[in-house]
Amino acid sequence: MSSPEGAPSENPRLVALELQYDGTDFCGWQSQAQGERTVQDALTDAIERITGQRVMVSGAGRTDSGVHALGQVASFSTNSKLSPEVLVRALNAVLPYDLRVIKLIDAPDGFHPRFSATGKRYGYYIANAPVMPPFARPYAWHFPKALDALAMREAASSFVGRHDFKAFQAAGSDVTDTVRTIWRCQVLTDLPPVAPGMEGMQIKVVVEGGGFLRHMVRTMVGTLVEVGSGALAAGDVAGIIASVQRSNAGPTAPARGLFLEEVYYGGQQ
Amino acid sequence: MSSPEGAPSENPRLVALELQYDGTDFCGWQSQAQGERTVQDALTDAIERITGQRVMVSGAGRTDSGVHALGQVASFSTNSKLSPEVLVRALNAVLPYDLRVIKLIDAPDGFHPRFSATGKRYGYYIANAPVMPPFARPYAWHFPKALDALAMREAASSFVGRHDFKAFQAAGSDVTDTVRTIWRCQVLTDLPPVAPGMEGMQIKVVVEGGGFLRHMVRTMVGTLVEVGSGALAAGDVAGIIASVQRSNAGPTAPARGLFLEEVYYGGQQ
Repeated sequence: MSSPEGAPSENPRLVALELQYDGTDFCGWQSQAQGERTVQDALTDAIERITGQRVMVSGAGRTDSGVHALGQVASFSTNSKLSPEVLVRALNAVLPYDLRVIKLIDAPDGFHPRFSATGKRYGYYIANAPVMPPFARPYAWHFPKALDALAMREAASSFVGRHDFKAFQAAGSDVTDTVRTIWRCQVLTDLPPVAPGMEGMQIKVVVEGGGFLRHMVRTMVGTLVEVGSGALAAGDVAGIIASVQRSNAGPTAPARGLFLEEVYYGGQQ
Repeated sequence: MSSPEGAPSENPRLVALELQYDGTDFCGWQSQAQGERTVQDALTDAIERITGQRVMVSGAGRTDSGVHALGQVASFSTNSKLSPEVLVRALNAVLPYDLRVIKLIDAPDGFHPRFSATGKRYGYYIANAPVMPPFARPYAWHFPKALDALAMREAASSFVGRHDFKAFQAAGSDVTDTVRTIWRCQVLTDLPPVAPGMEGMQIKVVVEGGGFLRHMVRTMVGTLVEVGSGALAAGDVAGIIASVQRSNAGPTAPARGLFLEEVYYGGQQ
C-alpha cells in the first residue's frame, strides 16, 4: 500500500522530524507493496491519526530491514496548526514504542531530508568474543573468532576519499554513478558498549561520507572483518576498490549491527 | 512443572555457571507451576538435552519477571564427563539467545550459589527525559519529569549500613528477619549509556549489599525517584527506614530497569 503524495499547495507547512527506531521488528524504512511493517508506514499512520491527513513522508535514508536509526530525518507537508511541541507529544503518544520522534521543527521552504542532506554517519558494532551477550544480539554482529583490530584500522583508511565504490554496492543494484566520497572510516575499540555485557569485546566501525550506495557500509564492514580474521590483507582493500567487482569484496555484514547515527545538513562536519 | 532434585550421591560432579539473560521475555528465574517461560526451566531443559539427565538447578538470586542478569550464578550436579569448555559451548548451542552461559567451572564441594554468596550488586537504570529512546525501553524506567540527582544522591546515603528494611520489602512477603546490610548505594549520572540514545539522560542507581528482600532494590529506587521529583525530601529516607512501614516508602520501580550485575563469594568487595 503506497501513500498518496500530499499536494504541497494544499499543505503549506513543511515539518522536519528527527527519528530514532529499533529496526529489529521493522521491514526497513520504505513502505512495502505487501503491507509489511515499515517505519514510513508507521509514521504515515501516526500523522494521519493526529492531523486527519494522509500525507507523503520522505526520509533521508532508506534503511534496510533490521537496520537501526539514532538520527534518521524525515519530513512531511501538513495543514495542521499544532505547535512543534504538541506534535512531538501527540505523535509519540500514538507511535509504537520502537519508533520515537526525538525532535520536530518547521522546516525552511524547499527542505528535503534526502536531497538537502550533505552527508551521513553510520556506526556498525561487532561483538568479538566466543559468547554473544544476550543484550547485544539485536545490535551487533557476533563474530566469535578473534579479529585483528589493528589490521582492520589500517584497511579502513583505504576507504577514505573519493572512490568508485561499485565493488561495495549490493549485487543487482541499478545505480550507475557509483562514485562516493568517504570522509572518515574508523575502527574503534575503546568506546562505551552498545549494550550491557559488550565490555572488552566491542569493535565499532564508524563511517562518514557524502553519500552511500545500497549495502555499502555493510559490505565495507564485511570486508574489514575479512581483514581482521586474516582472510584478506589490509593492503588488499585498495585493490578491491579499484577492481570495481562486487565479488572481490567481503560478505555483506548483518543488518542488525548497523545504525544510521546522524544525517548532516550544511556541509562536511 | 517442578524439576526433580538430582541425587548428589549419583552425580558427584558439581558445576557452577555464570549466566547473562535479558529478562524481557522470561517470567523470572524460578520455575512456575503454570509452566511459564522461566530461566530455571530453560537451563534445566538445556542441561537435560546435553547430559541426558534432568537435574535440579539452583540460582543465587530469584530475579522477578522482566529483571535482567549480567552475572547470575547457578549450579547443578551431574555425572557428565564433558569438559567445562565443551559444556559451555554445548549449552549455548541449545539455549535460547536471550540466555547465555558466560562461564562454567567445576565447583568445590558444598558450594551453593545462594547460600555460599556473601553479597550481590544490582544496577538500576532510569531514563530521565521527555522522550524514551526506543533502544532503552526494555532496560530502563522512563521518568519524563526532571529529577534532582543531587537530592537522590544525598538520600541514597541513608540506605548504607545495617538496617531493618521491612519498609522496603514487597507487601505480603512472609520473611520475618528483615535486617540487611547495604555496603553501597550510589546515584551515578556519568556512566556509559545502557543503550544507544540514553546519553545525557541516564541516572543509574547501584546498590551493593550482603542480602536483599523481595523488591527491595526496586522499592529503594522508587523512593529515590520520589526524592528526585520533590515528593519526598532527601532527609525523609532515614525516617522511612525507621518506620518499618511499607506504605511510607515509594512505589516499586518497574522490573525492566533492574540488572543483577554480580554475585560475590568470599566477602565484601
